[in-house]
Amino acid sequence: MAGYLYVVGIGPGAYEKMTIEAARVLEECDVITGYTVYVDLIKDHFKEKEFFTTPMRQEVERCRTALEEAAKGRRVAMVCSGDPGVYGMAGLILELSPQYPEVKIQVISGVTAACGGGAALGAPLIHDFAVISLSDLLTPMEVIEKRVQAAAEGDFVLCIYNPASKKRAGYLKRACEIVLKYRSPQTVCGTVKNIGRQGEEMAVMSLEALKDIQADMFTTVFIGNSSTKKIGEYMVTPRGYRHG
Amino acid sequence: MAGYLYVVGIGPGAYEKMTIEAARVLEECDVITGYTVYVDLIKDHFKEKEFFTTPMRQEVERCRTALEEAAKGRRVAMVCSGDPGVYGMAGLILELSPQYPEVKIQVISGVTAACGGGAALGAPLIHDFAVISLSDLLTPMEVIEKRVQAAAEGDFVLCIYNPASKKRAGYLKRACEIVLKYRSPQTVCGTVKNIGRQGEEMAVMSLEALKDIQADMFTTVFIGNSSTKKIGEYMVTPRGYRHG
Repeated sequence: MAGYLYVVGIGPGAYEKMTIEAARVLEECDVITGYTVYVDLIKDHFKEKEFFTTPMRQEVERCRTALEEAAKGRRVAMVCSGDPGVYGMAGLILELSPQYPEVKIQVISGVTAACGGGAALGAPLIHDFAVISLSDLLTPMEVIEKRVQAAAEGDFVLCIYNPASKKRAGYLKRACEIVLKYRSPQTVCGTVKNIGRQGEEMAVMSLEALKDIQADMFTTVFIGNSSTKKIGEYMVTPRGYRHG
Repeated sequence: MAGYLYVVGIGPGAYEKMTIEAARVLEECDVITGYTVYVDLIKDHFKEKEFFTTPMRQEVERCRTALEEAAKGRRVAMVCSGDPGVYGMAGLILELSPQYPEVKIQVISGVTAACGGGAALGAPLIHDFAVISLSDLLTPMEVIEKRVQAAAEGDFVLCIYNPASKKRAGYLKRACEIVLKYRSPQTVCGTVKNIGRQGEEMAVMSLEALKDIQADMFTTVFIGNSSTKKIGEYMVTPRGYRHG
């Protein structure tokens, strides 16, 4: 009997911000797995389900457990915050999938923090943008710095995931310093904390000011391109439409 | 009386792929506006509504009409495909908004083609990526080429929107030629046509092969980074987890 593993993006966090498809899949599955924090975000809406949660940093084990559960012929949903294909578990699940040929896998996309956070700030990502994680747990710092530099040179809007954690306090400052070689200190930037959840907080500021803030792992950072503007309280990157 | 303008992302196209919030907002508004093709995608689900559609290329007029309707004190929803903040109307609406101070604006995010198309192909965007539109209607071609080159140099996965149209037949080829200066001809690439709609078609191929395909404006293109792999039929970019 074939089992099914759905890798489901729940979006920024609030139940309403997941897709209708994601809610249906979670409703129809036998068991919901995932990192404790994400499962807790949606648990109240799917009370009849069996839940299986794993703590942070045990990604390989988490994915294997989900695949093994599905291999028994069950319908398993693994939840990820945002989109499971953006720094999420869809990649690792598919890397492991050849070892579980009896499991059918489907990725159900969700609203990633770039889009959810962008909507909270206004419209920072209207034009070409680069998404970069500053976490060096799995990526060497020199690769990250090279990417920040390339994105700055290409005048991309930058959307930064994982800008800092307790161990990585100076990383956002370093990224800003790289971008400052190519862009004005007055470049319009924004931060969003707890996107689409209780305690959502936005701020729009200059690149110079961004350099000195203390971000945390629940914050997504946006660095505007050379045309990004502050309009009222909004951060907006024009696409180039002519209007009076 | 304050009016409301909701700029609503409907995701890739199928009703199920919009968020619960987007569906609620469309249900609660008085009038739904937007580009004819997008309004047609969702019209059947909101039969009682008043609809107002405008043809392609009349973006400024489309946004002004929506703002003027809202300024009358109505609740207006403007629908965009994907996410309204990624090459969508959220930017232009906010640029025009100071002229309509009585209108409250809210951007409701959706699943953009990068995420929806990524899920269809597997997990191409698991690591840092750049989103670039090849449309030169509003952006000079030299800026686009510079960005393609910067993204290639930075070893970003590239996600390309608007890879071609009747008038821009050779643009994807040109972009591939730029990337080929930095990456192997065997780099894993993918295309998705009609994401999440009837007639969805995926293909995984080499960068060398991608160079010679004829894409159209309904196609989203993914160019892998130096670690992207083909696993079974999937396109997967590893993040770097160690697994046996």
